[in-house]
Amino acid sequence: MPTTLKEFESVWPRIVADLEDHCKQYKLPQQSLDWFVKSLNYNTVGGKCNRGMSVVDTASLLRGQTLQVGTEEYFKAALLGWMIELLQAFFLVSDDIMDSSKTRRGNPCWYLAPNVGMVAINDAFMLESSIYLLLKKHYRQEKSYIDMVELFHEVTFQTELGQACDLLTAPEDHVDLDNFSLEKFTFIVIFKTAYYSFYLPVALALHYVGAATPKNLQTSLDILIPMGEYFQAQDDYLDAFADPEVLGKIGTDIQDNKCSWLVNQALRKVTPEQRKVLEENYGQKDSAKEAKVKELYHELKLSEFYQVWEEERVADLRVKIEKVDESEGLKKEVFETFLQKIYKRSK
Amino acid sequence: MPTTLKEFESVWPRIVADLEDHCKQYKLPQQSLDWFVKSLNYNTVGGKCNRGMSVVDTASLLRGQTLQVGTEEYFKAALLGWMIELLQAFFLVSDDIMDSSKTRRGNPCWYLAPNVGMVAINDAFMLESSIYLLLKKHYRQEKSYIDMVELFHEVTFQTELGQACDLLTAPEDHVDLDNFSLEKFTFIVIFKTAYYSFYLPVALALHYVGAATPKNLQTSLDILIPMGEYFQAQDDYLDAFADPEVLGKIGTDIQDNKCSWLVNQALRKVTPEQRKVLEENYGQKDSAKEAKVKELYHELKLSEFYQVWEEERVADLRVKIEKVDESEGLKKEVFETFLQKIYKRSK
Repeated sequence: MPTTLKEFESVWPRIVADLEDHCKQYKLPQQSLDWFVKSLNYNTVGGKCNRGMSVVDTASLLRGQTLQVGTEEYFKAALLGWMIELLQAFFLVSDDIMDSSKTRRGNPCWYLAPNVGMVAINDAFMLESSIYLLLKKHYRQEKSYIDMVELFHEVTFQTELGQACDLLTAPEDHVDLDNFSLEKFTFIVIFKTAYYSFYLPVALALHYVGAATPKNLQTSLDILIPMGEYFQAQDDYLDAFADPEVLGKIGTDIQDNKCSWLVNQALRKVTPEQRKVLEENYGQKDSAKEAKVKELYHELKLSEFYQVWEEERVADLRVKIEKVDESEGLKKEVFETFLQKIYKRSK
Repeated sequence: MPTTLKEFESVWPRIVADLEDHCKQYKLPQQSLDWFVKSLNYNTVGGKCNRGMSVVDTASLLRGQTLQVGTEEYFKAALLGWMIELLQAFFLVSDDIMDSSKTRRGNPCWYLAPNVGMVAINDAFMLESSIYLLLKKHYRQEKSYIDMVELFHEVTFQTELGQACDLLTAPEDHVDLDNFSLEKFTFIVIFKTAYYSFYLPVALALHYVGAATPKNLQTSLDILIPMGEYFQAQDDYLDAFADPEVLGKIGTDIQDNKCSWLVNQALRKVTPEQRKVLEENYGQKDSAKEAKVKELYHELKLSEFYQVWEEERVADLRVKIEKVDESEGLKKEVFETFLQKIYKRSK
C-alpha cells in the first residue's frame, strides 16, 4: 500500500524539532529561530509531496514490505523524502523571485509574504542547508552517507544548470524563437526537472535499502530520465490542450514565452508563413495573440502528433522496464508504479 | 614568505577549466556555459583574497616550509583557499541583492550588471555548488574529504544564521534600537563573519597538512572566534572614527542602521536624554542626523573606550596564543600572523 500524505506529513514535526535543536545549540536568538521555523513550514509543507512520498513507496517496494508509519524505519525513509521536499522548497522560493511569480500553492509566494522580501533569498539557502544537517544527524553512521551527500550535491548542481539554461533560453521579457531548439528543451527538462523529481527519489530509496549498486543506479537513470522527459512533454501538452476545469489551472506557457515541447515541435513543422505567425504572437501577455498560437498548434495537428509520440515513448519505456535485471535488488515494479502515475493523466 | 595575490590568482584559470570540463560532460549548451564562466570570474576574482591566501600561508607555516607556486601542493592548498573565495562570492552576490547594494569592488553588483537581474540568485547557487564539485574532484581520495565537506556545510549554515539574525535585527527600513543588544551583535559577528573568515581558513589548512585533530580544531576555534569578534569591532570603530582618506571609503554604518559595536556600546552608556538623540538620528539617510550620532559617540568617549577595550582584547588573545599546545602540529605562529595583520590596522 502506498503511503498517504497524512502519514508522510506526520513525521514533519520531528524534522522541524531536529532543526530547531541544532539552532538552539548555537544559541540563535529567538526571533531568528521563530523566523526560520516559519519559513520551513510555509515553504516545505502544503504541496502534494509526490517526490517525497515516492521515496517511502519505492523503499517499501524494494524491501518487499510496506514501511509502517510510526516505526523508526518509516521515519528514516520519510526523512529522505522530506530532504527532496526541502531541496524543492529551496528551488521554488528562489525560482518564484527569479520568475516574479505571485502565488504558490494558493498562498502568496514567500518573498511576497508580509515583511519577507529579499530576505527570502537567505531563507532559501537555509532550506538547502537543512538537508545536510539532517543527513549528518541521521545518516552519518551509514556506509552510504557520503554517497547520499554527493548525490544531493550533484542533483542540486544539475538542477541549477537546468535553471540557468532555462532562464537564458526563455527570458520572460525577450522573445527570440531562434534561441529555442529541441536540444535545449531536452537539456532543460532533464536537468531542471528529471534528475531531482524522478531519479533522486529512486536513487535515495536504493541507498536506503542498501541496493545502490552502480548497475542499479545506472538502470534507474536510464529509465527515469526519459520518463522525466516524457512527463514534461505531457505537462506542456496539457498546458495548451487540457480542459482547464480538469487540469485545475489555466495554462500560461504561450504567454510566458516558455521553451515548451509544443513550441519546439511547432518550430520543426512550420512553413515560413506559419513561423511568422509564431514570431508575431508567441511570448506576449495578450490572450488574442495566445489564441493565434493555439490555432496554429491545431493547424499543425500537434495534439494528434503528441498522442502518437506519447504511445511510442511509453512503449519504449515499457521495453526498458521489461529488461530490468533484478539480480541486485532492483525491481521492475518501481518503474511500473512511476509510469502508471503518469500515463494518460489528465492533470 | 607569504604568498602574493598574483601567485594565488595564477591557479584560478585551472579551477575555471575544471568547472568548465564538468559542465561539458553534461553537454551544457554553450550560451549557458559562457554565462557561468562570466559569473565565476566577475564574482570570485578581483577582491583582496585575504581569506583564500591565508589557507596557503597557514599551510606553509604548519608545514614549516613555504609552498612553492607552480607545484601541485601549492595548487591543492590554493584550491582550498579559492573555495573560501567561492563561498564568499556566493554570499556577496546574494547579500548585495538583499541589501540593495549598488557597487562591489568598484564595479556594479552582479545583479545590476547588464542583463543579469534576479538570475544572479541562481548564479550565486552555482558558485556554492562549485565548491563541492572541486572538493570531490581533487580531495575525494583523501581521508579528510568528508570532514572538509561537513566543515563547508557547517560554516555555510552558520553564516546563513548570522545573516538571518542581522537582517532581522537591523532591517534597513525600520529603526528599532530596542532590537539591538551586545548579545545579538556578538551572535551576528561570530556567525556571519568569524566562522568563515577566521576559523575556516585555519581549519582547512589543518586538514590539508593532516593535523586537523579535535584538539587542534578546538584550539583554533577558541582563538579565532574571539579574534573575529575583535576584528569586527575594530571594523565598526574605523567606520566612524577613521580618516576616510586612509580608510579608502566613507563609513555608512550609522545611516545604514547597522547593529554595530559602537551603537551597542553607546546604548549601554547613554542617559535617557542621550538615548533620545540616538532614537531620533540613527539609521536615517541624512548626513546632519549622522553627524549628531557621531557627536554623541564623541561625548560618550567611545573612541577612547575602544582603544582601551582593544588593548584588553589583544592582551587576552596573546595569552591564549602563548598557551597553544603545539604537540599535535599546531603552531602559535599561525595565530600571531593573523593577529599581526589586524592589530592597529588603519584600513
